[in-house]
Amino acid sequence: MPALGTLYEPIAADLQKVVRVFDDELFSELPFVNELCTRVRLYRGKMLRPALLLLSARACGKLTDEHLTLAAVVEMVHMATLVHDDVLDDADVRRKHTTINRMEGNEAAILLGDYLISHAFHLCSSLDTQYASRLIGATTNTVCEGELQQVHHRGDDNLTLEQYLSIVTRKTAALTGACCRLGGHYAKAAPKAVDALERYGLDVGIAFQITDDILDIVGAEERMGKTLGRDLEKHKLTLPVIHCLSEAPPELRRKLRTHLASPRPERSQLAHYLQATDSIGYSLKAARGYIDSAVDALQVLPPTDARDSLERMARMILEREQ
Amino acid sequence: MPALGTLYEPIAADLQKVVRVFDDELFSELPFVNELCTRVRLYRGKMLRPALLLLSARACGKLTDEHLTLAAVVEMVHMATLVHDDVLDDADVRRKHTTINRMEGNEAAILLGDYLISHAFHLCSSLDTQYASRLIGATTNTVCEGELQQVHHRGDDNLTLEQYLSIVTRKTAALTGACCRLGGHYAKAAPKAVDALERYGLDVGIAFQITDDILDIVGAEERMGKTLGRDLEKHKLTLPVIHCLSEAPPELRRKLRTHLASPRPERSQLAHYLQATDSIGYSLKAARGYIDSAVDALQVLPPTDARDSLERMARMILEREQ
Repeated sequence: MPALGTLYEPIAADLQKVVRVFDDELFSELPFVNELCTRVRLYRGKMLRPALLLLSARACGKLTDEHLTLAAVVEMVHMATLVHDDVLDDADVRRKHTTINRMEGNEAAILLGDYLISHAFHLCSSLDTQYASRLIGATTNTVCEGELQQVHHRGDDNLTLEQYLSIVTRKTAALTGACCRLGGHYAKAAPKAVDALERYGLDVGIAFQITDDILDIVGAEERMGKTLGRDLEKHKLTLPVIHCLSEAPPELRRKLRTHLASPRPERSQLAHYLQATDSIGYSLKAARGYIDSAVDALQVLPPTDARDSLERMARMILEREQ
Repeated sequence: MPALGTLYEPIAADLQKVVRVFDDELFSELPFVNELCTRVRLYRGKMLRPALLLLSARACGKLTDEHLTLAAVVEMVHMATLVHDDVLDDADVRRKHTTINRMEGNEAAILLGDYLISHAFHLCSSLDTQYASRLIGATTNTVCEGELQQVHHRGDDNLTLEQYLSIVTRKTAALTGACCRLGGHYAKAAPKAVDALERYGLDVGIAFQITDDILDIVGAEERMGKTLGRDLEKHKLTLPVIHCLSEAPPELRRKLRTHLASPRPERSQLAHYLQATDSIGYSLKAARGYIDSAVDALQVLPPTDARDSLERMARMILEREQ
């Protein structure tokens, strides 16, 4: 995403502290475990989830040590899902680095993901109350359901828009929604503001996943720094394809179905089919709708630099190229 | 294990309640997720870990609702490790049923393991204080380290006794130790009694893993209800092999090393090599040493039916045939 630096200004110093909490928590007495964790750090990107949590806190009031801990927790949960996702997707590259599964094997990658999720909960349990542990636990339950739902529907070219949104809401938006809720809650914001922040986080998460799915079809692999076209290869239906299947004339629909079912479907060929129904355009418009709703939700908060950053962050999702 | 029924008498009704807590926690709105969980229930065996927790509680005083919750939590953690272990070991059969990975694929199995671990932490966070969440979190961190250590040393035929014990303590004994500690702690036992129970649980866990490793070489597959010989196939060194490598004359040692490094090592051939150094006998004796230590630790507790059950349970591990 472009120019995140200025958006992160209200929380730049705090993000550095989050990195320290993250690294301290993962320290092991076993040197090769630390080496694996060093590799995980290479996949650290925009730290979108910690940023959402910290900006939500700042938008409501004071940022506390609890926020720093929780920002590290949500990043650890996210990293765990990335490491396991790369096993599921048999991916080679993540953020321009070879994936754990490709470099160390699926076994080490599965266990490292488990190690990360375990440490996330362990770190979360260091807080005084159970509020965050309960919310994070409920959220990761939901994330796993979304991922299971996605695997369950693989190869199902009758996947509906509702089912797609249910998967996306669970696997991606549940966590971004929880980040914003935690930020507000631990800044002692009023329930109305906390609910609005969660709404913002959910909408941003859905929009983010839609743009991710679009980029998997039309993105530049080099710029994204990861293997693309995996949804197609893994026979996962995403919004542009669902739209095309519902809008295309019978002949095109038939061709598209045949292409989707082929053993090695081509990304460029798919993009060509989608042009006929402007399904990328439709999907971008859908993402824009969620972003508008997200920004709208923020209006119950007082105008601050942090709220401004949240607004601009949401808008930038629509300009994603990575 | 033989005749666990009478050992479980002090807690039989409680174990039924634990099963209910377990099933209630795993309920999902998504039908196919519930179907997967129904399959997981087929792998439920002796419920050794819940039994250790509940008997430890009864041996110290009163059993509470917290104990029932925690017994379900430790069983869920254990189930998660079984489901992921079966992926790592590429196993076909578990408790006489086809494994999740074989039936639903590795992806569903990885995600189901994640779902179980997530629910374990979520259930644990329903308690009033963080004590159990912290202990369970620290324990699962350790379990993952042990599993990573095992993968790291695969094919390493210089694995030492110390390294083997460090792996076993982490991957198996840490959880049984935590079960006994939680049982005592939530029964408000004195710190000395809680420490003794943890010692008992650790020793029992090490002995259990040693007998498991012995059975992987000389056990009857049909009676065990799972695929055996996996340690050998996966080039994992266990106690009998470590002993044989250190005690065998050079010629036998050379043959054994060659056999271990072969693509398809034979279980019966390995058992034959081990006979020369009585390495199965040595390993059983080592297990017996841990059981003696475990029983010894219990002597700080007052004599009760529950303590008696814990003692007999420990002794029975040496008679395992499954």
